[in-house]
Amino acid sequence: MIYFNSDYLEGAHSAIMERMMETNMMQTVGYSCDEICDSARAKVRAACNAPEADVHFLVGGTQTNTTVIAALLRPWQGVVSAVSGHINCHETGAIESTGHKVIALPTPDGKLTAKQVKDYVEWQKNDESEEHIVQPGMVYISHPTETGMLYSKAELTEIFNTCREYGLPLYIDGARLGYGLTADGNDLSLPEIAQLCDVFYIGGTKVGALFGEAVVIMNEKYKKDFRFMIKQRGGMLAKGRLLGIQFDTLFTDDLYTKIARNANDMAYQIRDIFVSNGYLLLFDSPTNQQYPIISDEELAILGKNFGYEYWERVDETHSGVRFCGSWATTQEQVDALREAVNALKK
Amino acid sequence: MIYFNSDYLEGAHSAIMERMMETNMMQTVGYSCDEICDSARAKVRAACNAPEADVHFLVGGTQTNTTVIAALLRPWQGVVSAVSGHINCHETGAIESTGHKVIALPTPDGKLTAKQVKDYVEWQKNDESEEHIVQPGMVYISHPTETGMLYSKAELTEIFNTCREYGLPLYIDGARLGYGLTADGNDLSLPEIAQLCDVFYIGGTKVGALFGEAVVIMNEKYKKDFRFMIKQRGGMLAKGRLLGIQFDTLFTDDLYTKIARNANDMAYQIRDIFVSNGYLLLFDSPTNQQYPIISDEELAILGKNFGYEYWERVDETHSGVRFCGSWATTQEQVDALREAVNALKK
Amino acid sequence: MIYFNSDYLEGAHSAIMERMMETNMMQTVGYSCDEICDSARAKVRAACNAPEADVHFLVGGTQTNTTVIAALLRPWQGVVSAVSGHINCHETGAIESTGHKVIALPTPDGKLTAKQVKDYVEWQKNDESEEHIVQPGMVYISHPTETGMLYSKAELTEIFNTCREYGLPLYIDGARLGYGLTADGNDLSLPEIAQLCDVFYIGGTKVGALFGEAVVIMNEKYKKDFRFMIKQRGGMLAKGRLLGIQFDTLFTDDLYTKIARNANDMAYQIRDIFVSNGYLLLFDSPTNQQYPIISDEELAILGKNFGYEYWERVDETHSGVRFCGSWATTQEQVDALREAVNALKK
Amino acid sequence: MIYFNSDYLEGAHSAIMERMMETNMMQTVGYSCDEICDSARAKVRAACNAPEADVHFLVGGTQTNTTVIAALLRPWQGVVSAVSGHINCHETGAIESTGHKVIALPTPDGKLTAKQVKDYVEWQKNDESEEHIVQPGMVYISHPTETGMLYSKAELTEIFNTCREYGLPLYIDGARLGYGLTADGNDLSLPEIAQLCDVFYIGGTKVGALFGEAVVIMNEKYKKDFRFMIKQRGGMLAKGRLLGIQFDTLFTDDLYTKIARNANDMAYQIRDIFVSNGYLLLFDSPTNQQYPIISDEELAILGKNFGYEYWERVDETHSGVRFCGSWATTQEQVDALREAVNALKK
Repeated sequence: MIYFNSDYLEGAHSAIMERMMETNMMQTVGYSCDEICDSARAKVRAACNAPEADVHFLVGGTQTNTTVIAALLRPWQGVVSAVSGHINCHETGAIESTGHKVIALPTPDGKLTAKQVKDYVEWQKNDESEEHIVQPGMVYISHPTETGMLYSKAELTEIFNTCREYGLPLYIDGARLGYGLTADGNDLSLPEIAQLCDVFYIGGTKVGALFGEAVVIMNEKYKKDFRFMIKQRGGMLAKGRLLGIQFDTLFTDDLYTKIARNANDMAYQIRDIFVSNGYLLLFDSPTNQQYPIISDEELAILGKNFGYEYWERVDETHSGVRFCGSWATTQEQVDALREAVNALKK
Repeated sequence: MIYFNSDYLEGAHSAIMERMMETNMMQTVGYSCDEICDSARAKVRAACNAPEADVHFLVGGTQTNTTVIAALLRPWQGVVSAVSGHINCHETGAIESTGHKVIALPTPDGKLTAKQVKDYVEWQKNDESEEHIVQPGMVYISHPTETGMLYSKAELTEIFNTCREYGLPLYIDGARLGYGLTADGNDLSLPEIAQLCDVFYIGGTKVGALFGEAVVIMNEKYKKDFRFMIKQRGGMLAKGRLLGIQFDTLFTDDLYTKIARNANDMAYQIRDIFVSNGYLLLFDSPTNQQYPIISDEELAILGKNFGYEYWERVDETHSGVRFCGSWATTQEQVDALREAVNALKK
Repeated sequence: MIYFNSDYLEGAHSAIMERMMETNMMQTVGYSCDEICDSARAKVRAACNAPEADVHFLVGGTQTNTTVIAALLRPWQGVVSAVSGHINCHETGAIESTGHKVIALPTPDGKLTAKQVKDYVEWQKNDESEEHIVQPGMVYISHPTETGMLYSKAELTEIFNTCREYGLPLYIDGARLGYGLTADGNDLSLPEIAQLCDVFYIGGTKVGALFGEAVVIMNEKYKKDFRFMIKQRGGMLAKGRLLGIQFDTLFTDDLYTKIARNANDMAYQIRDIFVSNGYLLLFDSPTNQQYPIISDEELAILGKNFGYEYWERVDETHSGVRFCGSWATTQEQVDALREAVNALKK
Repeated sequence: MIYFNSDYLEGAHSAIMERMMETNMMQTVGYSCDEICDSARAKVRAACNAPEADVHFLVGGTQTNTTVIAALLRPWQGVVSAVSGHINCHETGAIESTGHKVIALPTPDGKLTAKQVKDYVEWQKNDESEEHIVQPGMVYISHPTETGMLYSKAELTEIFNTCREYGLPLYIDGARLGYGLTADGNDLSLPEIAQLCDVFYIGGTKVGALFGEAVVIMNEKYKKDFRFMIKQRGGMLAKGRLLGIQFDTLFTDDLYTKIARNANDMAYQIRDIFVSNGYLLLFDSPTNQQYPIISDEELAILGKNFGYEYWERVDETHSGVRFCGSWATTQEQVDALREAVNALKK
């Protein structure tokens, strides 16, 4: 079996594993106060061209989102998100468990617009019952979104300007940030993303690390005491150097970018395999997740040798499914898929 | 000025005020453990034909909803509600502040259906990511709804049966329950409502009391330790007898029913005033809240002498507004409105 | 039976009840936005000599403490309190339910000292594990304390200066503030108290109101959006004018002070009744709560005609009990007690 | 420098690292639903002689404590702990952040007694203000305690029986469980511990793993939906197999026990080094943490080549410090320490 279900099916990139082995018996202090974490933080800051940024390493995405969001909001505030946002759909109410409403706005493609944010904030502020409505206290977007869509520089700039206008911090969930940064058609660099938000995180779990997310706090206002929050939320790893090792490796010699690009390259090939064979796509996604529509009959055949993620029923005989490329996907794996799909059409 | 904005514009029914005066210098123990509260609880149980029910008195609606919902749910569960439900819209995130998501389902008229509940629960249970999605842990409905709509006995029975099927407690917000029980076309009695849910509350604040809501816990499973929850949520009034006095009075000689019917009678007259003058209604509401559509020009004229609640813009020159009848509304007040509206049309 | 158990055994002072009756059928807007509340707020500000203060009316003490404390703290912070503080002992974990630790420091008499605060803050800040320890985020004191003790002006000034030094807001729980302000030996005026803290509340429930506490926010930093917090915590009374009526009355012609002094006068007589008959006191309390030590035998006799609160066992045959004077206690009631106690000693 | 500061200074045991490398490019499903986790769960169950137990893998100790405790308690309940318990002292209020009070009872040595639990529960239940006091809802102990102390089988049995008597679940924090199980004088086996509580966890982070704690739920009542809770609390690792790999390795061929015993052996040698040189101990600890009292002068000398954890000042010229043995401590490291200490005394 070859699995294309997601981008977290394997362990970590070999460079990370080697570094883990080399440093294994080193003695360091705990809680990410060691010198490897210091080095990793410096490299992340350099890659972001953000020498003043605070960088923190957490273990996973839900933990990161919960920690950041609960640290930024006041008790009566909520976080504005697309309905399809990860925090609204797939975190078992983690945000609400910290006391905050996810103010979920519907979108056609998972992307919030500046206008939506503006309209919502204006509506709430001007409603007679203003004080009876959760106050929007920050904006959450994912880049790429849950289905791999990208904000353009113009779109992100507009959202950020709107947030600034209303005093709302903008937080970007970058669980798959690497795949966005290296996508065809992307016009946003890492330093630009850093400049266009208050806090964001660079995902490691889905981009070559065993686990780990690097939170980058750009806005001075949110830096103070953030480590207390990490500890309280259960995110302060005793052997914090494990996170340092991973990000230090990922941000050495552009490794993060290189392996992310591999995922996109493989995903584009996967897309071409289906499209060139006449399959429609559920939607056109520019990054490492691809969504062909396949007949249930053919899915049954493919499913014998290939793993994919079921997405949604399209009609009585067809389903949309997800195939992911990842940092680990090999040309051999994609070639095997090509052969299998071509065979279906013979 | 005569105000029809809401049903909590005045103090309390005179019978309550008299009882307050009479008992003012009585010495009683605190926290609703006094004999007047005992009497009130007995009368509420009798009115509900529910001799085994637990009855608790709280101060206001948001407090009551928060206390009940947080007491019933486990941390990973959310409460299913209509999008327009009070807990989703007008409680400043009070439910989320207790750690729970409001799972808001869209409805055309503010009424959840059994099928919606069933479909949602089935979808969540069967989703591959089940454990990543907030588990529906209870169902919340308002009767009447925010805009005064009513569930029929058949509808409520079906919802309750569905809840039972899935082990979900059903909680009914009865902030305006009196207005529902006494509405034209209503086919549900208080004992029937009690039988068709696990917990509900009988609203006092909007139906003749200074303040106060009577929570009725029907399901044995949710009775234990509820007073701890009331205290923790700030709802245990030191001079609890004030709540006892009010509910004891409201449930003596059917006072609650009588004054609620007055509100509906007056509201029906208000509806007729507008309809007979050719005004359309935003929607047809069977209880004490009525929603005529009025031109902005005429609203400006009416607004000089009459208070109403602005609801929503209908078109460039018309708005939907709310006029409420209440336990306190007098024939004179309605007659004055009639005259004014008739005058507009001359 | 005559009850001296507490200071919330009766309804409200007659002036309040009259005003309730007079205004009962007035129509006002809800949620404390009415003109009576405006007037009451102005009078409270005047009494505090604090023209810039924000004044909010809430229903009860636990609700008030929870709302204020949760509004002031960040998630990783706790509130410093005496072990015997109401928030630590008698609110069913309401503070913790908002996510915050009560950092409880032991005291001999329920009074925190500036030194205790300073030492604790310094210890936490300088501990190697600083980030693993809840950060002290504010200081809570009661004036009078749970057992009626008073801070002197010098003591309060020193605490407040220490709080300022460390950037900690000081919050004073004034559930029985009136009894403190009018006690023999008290050297703090209401305007001085206002100047020596960031937020405090003036208790109504225990000083002549049916219910209600007036929160006074002195520090500009904590004013913003407080009404959202009140609403979320279930403390925004629909018929808010009921709170306005009560505080407007209490702060007209010094009524609050006058009725509070009556409580102390009666309590001092009660103390004298016991002391002059040779009874010891559990401790000497300068306000309306008095704690004689009485043999169990005599308690049984007294208990037939007089209510008191059991406090603690002193030895095998004696108990410390509490007798309270209140705004409502009459000379006749105290005289009856005197006669009964004198009779015991014959 | 050789560090004895703690037992989480190095990476993981070599057997774990080898297994990590071997499995690195395997493709598995996420969230601990893979076959390696299944195998690890089976081995943990076998080691506990608890075929019906539920076993879950979480990342760290604070996360584990928070997840378990918040899953077991109802909103108005708190968790009984020693004052020195990790949840009370060193988790930045993580328990309180879930809404629950830590009911902290003082102990001379960090060990709760059955009598303390019984007395507290009886006091709360019988207090007049019962409903105003946080209800004890479970009991938390650490084995070994924060300072390495051990419960005897008789003590643990008595605590568990008391918990049963009052319907309180008993939860054992086993962050250093391995060091307890293999200590001289210990009379509790892993299956016995499993039988004498409702939930416990087997610590990996401090006993040879990179990270990871295995929660064992013995009581049927607490099994349902626990994975929802893990996800909500941010503890569900995407690449869950990393936890499976580690516990599968630790519970193969008794590795967990073997490496834990090494820590104790080394710690006993460290103790002997100090005691034989005439140093006093802060207290006598039977496991891998040892607490010699050393003059500040000598500490300065030792500190040039050896790391230790500062514990507390003993007098003006002496301090108590902690030296830990761990799974990774070597005979060479201990010999170097011996030489250095012996040298001090020459």
